[in-house]
Amino acid sequence: MSTDFFKVHQEVLEQAVAAAATRDYWSPYPESPSPRVYGETANEEGRAAFEAYHGKDFPLQLDGATGQFGKEVSPFGIELGIRYPQVPAATLIAQSQAALETWREAGPQAWAGVSVEILKRVNQRSFEMAYAVQHTTGQGFMMAFQAGGPHAQDRGLEAVAYAWNEMARIPGEVTWEKPQGKHDPIRMQKRFTIVPRGVALVIGCSTFPTWNGYPGFFASLATGNAVIVKPHPGAILPLAITVSIARDVLTEAGFDPNVVLLAVHDAGDDTAQTLALDPAVKIIDFTGSSANGNWLEAEASQAQVYTEKAGVNQVIIDSVDDFKSVARNLAFSFSLYSGQMCTAPQNIYVPRDGIATADGRMSFDEVAAGLAQAVAKLVADPARAVEITGAIQNAGTLERIETARKLGLPILADSQSLTHPQFEGAKVQTPLVLQADADNDVIMREWFGPIVFVVATDSTEHSLQLAQRTVIEHGALTLAAYTTDQSVAKQAEKAAERAGVSLSLNLTGAVFVNQTAAFSDFHGTGANPAANASLSDTAYVANRFRVVQTRWHV
Amino acid sequence: MSTDFFKVHQEVLEQAVAAAATRDYWSPYPESPSPRVYGETANEEGRAAFEAYHGKDFPLQLDGATGQFGKEVSPFGIELGIRYPQVPAATLIAQSQAALETWREAGPQAWAGVSVEILKRVNQRSFEMAYAVQHTTGQGFMMAFQAGGPHAQDRGLEAVAYAWNEMARIPGEVTWEKPQGKHDPIRMQKRFTIVPRGVALVIGCSTFPTWNGYPGFFASLATGNAVIVKPHPGAILPLAITVSIARDVLTEAGFDPNVVLLAVHDAGDDTAQTLALDPAVKIIDFTGSSANGNWLEAEASQAQVYTEKAGVNQVIIDSVDDFKSVARNLAFSFSLYSGQMCTAPQNIYVPRDGIATADGRMSFDEVAAGLAQAVAKLVADPARAVEITGAIQNAGTLERIETARKLGLPILADSQSLTHPQFEGAKVQTPLVLQADADNDVIMREWFGPIVFVVATDSTEHSLQLAQRTVIEHGALTLAAYTTDQSVAKQAEKAAERAGVSLSLNLTGAVFVNQTAAFSDFHGTGANPAANASLSDTAYVANRFRVVQTRWHV
Repeated sequence: MSTDFFKVHQEVLEQAVAAAATRDYWSPYPESPSPRVYGETANEEGRAAFEAYHGKDFPLQLDGATGQFGKEVSPFGIELGIRYPQVPAATLIAQSQAALETWREAGPQAWAGVSVEILKRVNQRSFEMAYAVQHTTGQGFMMAFQAGGPHAQDRGLEAVAYAWNEMARIPGEVTWEKPQGKHDPIRMQKRFTIVPRGVALVIGCSTFPTWNGYPGFFASLATGNAVIVKPHPGAILPLAITVSIARDVLTEAGFDPNVVLLAVHDAGDDTAQTLALDPAVKIIDFTGSSANGNWLEAEASQAQVYTEKAGVNQVIIDSVDDFKSVARNLAFSFSLYSGQMCTAPQNIYVPRDGIATADGRMSFDEVAAGLAQAVAKLVADPARAVEITGAIQNAGTLERIETARKLGLPILADSQSLTHPQFEGAKVQTPLVLQADADNDVIMREWFGPIVFVVATDSTEHSLQLAQRTVIEHGALTLAAYTTDQSVAKQAEKAAERAGVSLSLNLTGAVFVNQTAAFSDFHGTGANPAANASLSDTAYVANRFRVVQTRWHV
Repeated sequence: MSTDFFKVHQEVLEQAVAAAATRDYWSPYPESPSPRVYGETANEEGRAAFEAYHGKDFPLQLDGATGQFGKEVSPFGIELGIRYPQVPAATLIAQSQAALETWREAGPQAWAGVSVEILKRVNQRSFEMAYAVQHTTGQGFMMAFQAGGPHAQDRGLEAVAYAWNEMARIPGEVTWEKPQGKHDPIRMQKRFTIVPRGVALVIGCSTFPTWNGYPGFFASLATGNAVIVKPHPGAILPLAITVSIARDVLTEAGFDPNVVLLAVHDAGDDTAQTLALDPAVKIIDFTGSSANGNWLEAEASQAQVYTEKAGVNQVIIDSVDDFKSVARNLAFSFSLYSGQMCTAPQNIYVPRDGIATADGRMSFDEVAAGLAQAVAKLVADPARAVEITGAIQNAGTLERIETARKLGLPILADSQSLTHPQFEGAKVQTPLVLQADADNDVIMREWFGPIVFVVATDSTEHSLQLAQRTVIEHGALTLAAYTTDQSVAKQAEKAAERAGVSLSLNLTGAVFVNQTAAFSDFHGTGANPAANASLSDTAYVANRFRVVQTRWHV
């Protein structure tokens, strides 16, 4: 008899459900990479495990593999040379469908139990995962550990919790008794069975393969679907490790490991499209470009499609108490992982005639210069800076910086290449801060990477209108506002509600607009073009399974 | 200060939420048209109210109306001559968007309270509604009263209950406190606001304008959306009465009555398409043909689209105790509202070599003849028959009976025209029961109306395979099976689960496969081509609103 993973993890699952309801801080996965938490040898063991993969076939046996493939290069300059088994799309679909046949019969407790056990084991390998995330995405180590490890695991568990909660609301079997006046009541027995939709596809991105991949992966797995994970060709390792752990747990639990499969492919081929349009694929989770996301939404009509795409994140500066703390907070948000975050702020709206501060008025130019100086200060020490900025994940972002620089806009802070003290091949860039006018169309599109526009507006009212319209037309994952005026705060909140974007007010401390906390902050609203779903809410899980009932007289 | 409808109805709402969780029998709206329940004069008053509409302008004031329109003719032969205000689509959209501005601010309690108050008043006018439903859909009076009145109201309340339950799970405001070891914790305040999606469109059908229309109408209204109701041109009155009541309640509650609008139009014009593709329309609920439903799913990509379309409902006869009770039950299902139900059985699978009964084996021919005889017996007395069959709603169904008759298949029971004792112009037809072979493609499509095929299969296993495949390929809202063999029952259940269709086992009494009970039976699974949603479940409501959060340090 295999372990009952549901019994093992029931308590944490119930805690997770409760946390998502109260939305207070909660996490079962410590975010500190401290030896006191993860063990004295955890870091070294994780690094060794990561390095052992280099230049070898990744230890994953997939039936039907036609070869080994992999071209990952660390943005820090290391050629990884890891080769993964490559299985044709049609074979993957057939294997997935076959594995689904027993998995679907296992039921919600088994699905949830296996899911949480996978997360537990992924958590135990958080250092290995941190190095894998660092050297595929370009994130600095601390971020790779936290966002790629415990925070991603939190988001995975959150999805399982929502899924479990929804499934647990459906009774297994009930007696239905309808009174008939003086006659005997009509009595029926009804059984409600939760059935998966089918094969689920998770399309990973190159910047947050686990954080953005886990919600869809675990939401689909925990609702009884078989999952094919298709990583971005540039960031395979973190998801390959995850798939490998998942297959181990499935096997131990007595299921076909093919319930979770890995689809490795070369950049630019049609693997993603082929999988996405297969009639057997009933759920797709996608993180990536608007072009690809919109294509999936339009074309993969046989599937439930959940997308996170591009957007234009904005900051409204109306009035502040202490400008320095505002600038410090924003400079960190611009620099963190070189703005390669779907949540990074891009357009900073400042009234042309300046803002009020506790120390008197500041002109637009003073605000713009202040922001640029805060960036300069933050990245002044390259050794410290690279830990914040990490490295640039791909050449497209480097080119984008160059394109932005050539827009002809006033440069408030130029993007500098930094030499990484540890990795000489690392592509490190500090933020480019430009000045733009509100009617310049360039600010109406996403400039993914460390590119920021300080935008002169006619007034705060204009800033609010511009922000609202931009979210409605182009999407956004975040909106921030700085104001000491309660009525402006209320207006910002109303603008956010109408545009359908989350608002952060007056962040000046240790919380940044780029960051959200699982179980408390919803990531994305699903109400604007940047994402058609929210991580995580009921809508994100409730349509991944269906209920089939059988009724009979008793 | 207007009435707090939430407070008034909170208890019934909580009972409804509890009922949907336990799925036992429950209803707050009595299904009996008894004078003891609805009052001694209720029937006469309802009839008088209905008759007062004839040949007049319907008492509904809509701003921007460009004229009055209406061509409804009762399937029982009465020209209704009711004229409704007709407002251009663009005007409706603009009015709806304007009304949304205050409605969206009212919040979940107001939305739910107003919704339940509307239902309460609709319930009080159940007799008027019964006549309105009878003389637009062609349903017999008892069915029009029950399915068009209390049962539709149940389904409406069920949707409100699911919506309320989902919205109530989101806390209004919370404090988030993240420990920082020896340092002070990070404390943030977070406010979560439920925001509607926008303008919702409800596209009604001609056969069940209220039963099929209310779930979407109330799910959208109770989640803060403004709703435009577009009835089928042949069945406007029941929804016009509903809209009129809704606008009264909204006005009393201090809201813009344009939160609920009526879109009346002529058959064959492009009103539905124009409304459906308007960028402001974010939710569409549709009941009707597969062609129109599939078009909406593909084209109205700006909206959440919930559809109920055509399907092929099937019955598997394997073995029975008492064939007579089986035949009686099925004959009633064939005859009820002349099969003009999305849930009516069409294909009856019987093994070619017959079935086992408690009284020995019956040959295929005996089973087929037995079903036909049961139909003949049920409709032998026209006065009694017409109360079951009602009248044929539209000419297309009459033509379909003719087309089926000309298929050249053996006729087991011919469809007869009956004279209605009360309404001489009523188009009444008894069921046409044909014999077909399993490999005949005609059984693979929906024959909406009183058309039944008794299909010879190779075996029960063949019947099961055929049923499963047909549901997967062509969709179905119901599947029924008759068997005395536990293992066949289990196989039927597995086939139903894999195809994604609800199963009724061995119905021989007062419950019919066509009928589902709100708060207990899910209508549709959303897992096969006949419908992309289920009435009602969490998935049906959870994406009709979104959550926008605001966070700040405290």
